[in-house]
Amino acid sequence: MKKKIVIVGGCAAGPKCAAKSRRMDSESEIVLYTKGNIISYSACGLPYYVGGQVKDIHQLIVRTPEDFKKVGVDVYTNHTCTKINPNEKTIVVNDETISYDDLVLAVGANAVTPPIPNVQLKNIYHLTTLDEGAAIKELMQNSKSVLIIGAGYIAVELLEAFVSNGLFVTMLERSGQVLSNFDEEMSAVIEKDIFDDDTKAVVYKNDEVTEFLGEDGEFRGAKTKQGREIMADFCVLCTGVKPNTQLAQDAGIEIGITGAIKVDKRMRTSAPNIWAIGDCAEKFCMITGVPQYMALGSTANKEGRVCAINVNGGNEDFEGILGSAVTRCHSYTISITGMTDRSVRKHPEFDPVSVLITDADRAGYMPEMQEITLKLVGDRKTRRILGAQAVGKGDADKRINTVTAAIQSRMCVDEFANNDMTYAPPFSMAIDPLLAATAILKEKMDKK
Amino acid sequence: MKKKIVIVGGCAAGPKCAAKSRRMDSESEIVLYTKGNIISYSACGLPYYVGGQVKDIHQLIVRTPEDFKKVGVDVYTNHTCTKINPNEKTIVVNDETISYDDLVLAVGANAVTPPIPNVQLKNIYHLTTLDEGAAIKELMQNSKSVLIIGAGYIAVELLEAFVSNGLFVTMLERSGQVLSNFDEEMSAVIEKDIFDDDTKAVVYKNDEVTEFLGEDGEFRGAKTKQGREIMADFCVLCTGVKPNTQLAQDAGIEIGITGAIKVDKRMRTSAPNIWAIGDCAEKFCMITGVPQYMALGSTANKEGRVCAINVNGGNEDFEGILGSAVTRCHSYTISITGMTDRSVRKHPEFDPVSVLITDADRAGYMPEMQEITLKLVGDRKTRRILGAQAVGKGDADKRINTVTAAIQSRMCVDEFANNDMTYAPPFSMAIDPLLAATAILKEKMDKK
Repeated sequence: MKKKIVIVGGCAAGPKCAAKSRRMDSESEIVLYTKGNIISYSACGLPYYVGGQVKDIHQLIVRTPEDFKKVGVDVYTNHTCTKINPNEKTIVVNDETISYDDLVLAVGANAVTPPIPNVQLKNIYHLTTLDEGAAIKELMQNSKSVLIIGAGYIAVELLEAFVSNGLFVTMLERSGQVLSNFDEEMSAVIEKDIFDDDTKAVVYKNDEVTEFLGEDGEFRGAKTKQGREIMADFCVLCTGVKPNTQLAQDAGIEIGITGAIKVDKRMRTSAPNIWAIGDCAEKFCMITGVPQYMALGSTANKEGRVCAINVNGGNEDFEGILGSAVTRCHSYTISITGMTDRSVRKHPEFDPVSVLITDADRAGYMPEMQEITLKLVGDRKTRRILGAQAVGKGDADKRINTVTAAIQSRMCVDEFANNDMTYAPPFSMAIDPLLAATAILKEKMDKK
Repeated sequence: MKKKIVIVGGCAAGPKCAAKSRRMDSESEIVLYTKGNIISYSACGLPYYVGGQVKDIHQLIVRTPEDFKKVGVDVYTNHTCTKINPNEKTIVVNDETISYDDLVLAVGANAVTPPIPNVQLKNIYHLTTLDEGAAIKELMQNSKSVLIIGAGYIAVELLEAFVSNGLFVTMLERSGQVLSNFDEEMSAVIEKDIFDDDTKAVVYKNDEVTEFLGEDGEFRGAKTKQGREIMADFCVLCTGVKPNTQLAQDAGIEIGITGAIKVDKRMRTSAPNIWAIGDCAEKFCMITGVPQYMALGSTANKEGRVCAINVNGGNEDFEGILGSAVTRCHSYTISITGMTDRSVRKHPEFDPVSVLITDADRAGYMPEMQEITLKLVGDRKTRRILGAQAVGKGDADKRINTVTAAIQSRMCVDEFANNDMTYAPPFSMAIDPLLAATAILKEKMDKK
């Protein structure tokens, strides 16, 4: 009898799992339900639609239900799953009971709405769906100023979009730094770069909204804890996401300490034949093994692939995450992988040592040369490289991706100093900044 | 008593070794002799001076003798070493006998002049020194056409330089492909890219010059084995380099099977207290351990560092090379690391399997998206990744550098598929082309 795989969720992990399952087994029945009216869209692309680089919002759609129909995957949009019955191996979708052999939860995450008075005012938006993207873009085109709450990746990407469209941006961040997953000294470099012109954008840190101000039900501004009154034409909440776990919780499926659905390396939940992937599922740190939560499309796709292999009788592990990320703001690249100085200090098994350099991203005599500021973090005891952060107008991204593989394979600085990185004047220096930093880190480790 | 370190050679490895030695030990006497009139210049930058991106040829000089004087390293230019007396621990430089405690040979490589009739004609050049760079640039400015012999990295870089200055380029290559260290199918992609307009440049493969044609002692053209007669205003020989080993050989120092000075991982030659680094020294493949010869500035710098550490009492290994390289031609990036399909087939211990894909280098909806063609080579038995090649208008370089670390740490495809590469639409796709290729390679390995 052919197997029936039911997937709930249609953004990134679900469609990836459906596509890979189809490739693994051409006989099985694969059904995907999603509450939205489209599937498989790139939420990460929304800031570039708002900014205007992506002209048509439909370009953000990767696959359509029709694409899936052609390969024999049935996709049902506007179908909401309201209940899982693990013992009966059924779910309830739009009041209908559906059976499964394997159930894959890819129900994603929800944007967090902070409990601030008047947060329900018109023109206060999240940016997670295409509809919200379209609405924000329209608002932007008739506005002169915007308030962004939060200073994470999407906040920074929206800052670029708004400033490049002539709006004045006020960013408000509760913590003491922009991109608070970076080390403070790196965030300081980033802030200097992206807020270099205060006629275009400003950031207020260590401050938060106490009350939104409205007129006729529409957002007009905000009062803050530090006593500011910030007026703007509209507001975007970039205050993070929370994994969507209600459905799993109601079915008695175990939730992890991060608040996301607990899974093992195979992407299995605590309930037999129920799997969880993508933004609803818990991750763990590749270095420490500690559970972690991070919602990223790249991870969602990897988990979708791993899950599909295992659902279809394979034996595949997801090896965890390094928190690797990259973003761009104006011409600045901002990138990170692995642990920061701060996160390493929380783990007594490590003896952290770090180096920060600013160097040319390619031969100094090449006219397109730009600087990057690069930080490397290592452990003196094991001499392992644990993390890297890079920022600048130059090619910061390349160096970080080189480090991801080094961290994953537990390379120590002594090995990594020998890394045979490519070199030619348009791309690097004879001693790449990454290797220069590694040599200094090595010297620092030797000294104690 | 303070130690006396004598370094012979002033291009890349020698100065690096001098600088690092100084940092290791502030007391030692460090003397560097070079036969040239300058030191520490970037030969790799010469094509960009010829092309015009680098305006002043002196920008290619990294360090001057004065820079070294400040830190207490004595540099003697126009000093030629003619003899080594290993037993006496002396060398002869400009007829003077100099003693050493440690002698570092960084005497580089010489451009190969093929034994072709009339090769001594005027306006036939190599491109290795600043003087040659200046001469070629001047010739170019008064010329309409050029013949390039060879199709390696420098040949390809000069092609860009000449075409962008309006010259018609004829490239003549003895083998059947441009950049013959790549797999043929990749070279085919490269050729299609860089010779897409035959009113600007053409390549003739499987052909070689039998006789240069001259008039009044000046180059006018060449006759080839296949019967071509190619006329051009001048000619550049990009026919490779040979390690400069005469001095070592005369002193009874062992030469390796590649024809370069044999060294161990510490950069020691067969003679006590004599070291060799850079383009005169033999390398070995990080994967197979087999001796190899390749002249690259990035390797020279690494060897200079390793040697300095060991000369000064440290314990450092140079772990070999992966043949990593990158170059650019017009807007195409061309990059490689590790073994090719062809080189893997020469090693019976491997069961080669490979994949070639063409994919977007970033999200397809980003206007700056470009394609890259990527080839991954692995071993079915150990499932290790052994090599990668990438070419295209897109960001090919980044992917190759990510693979260098993976190969060095002997990662298998199953691990590398989990590599937490950074993702954001301006930089990658949710499934990076490298990870997409890895997944396919993995499937191929599983199938047999």
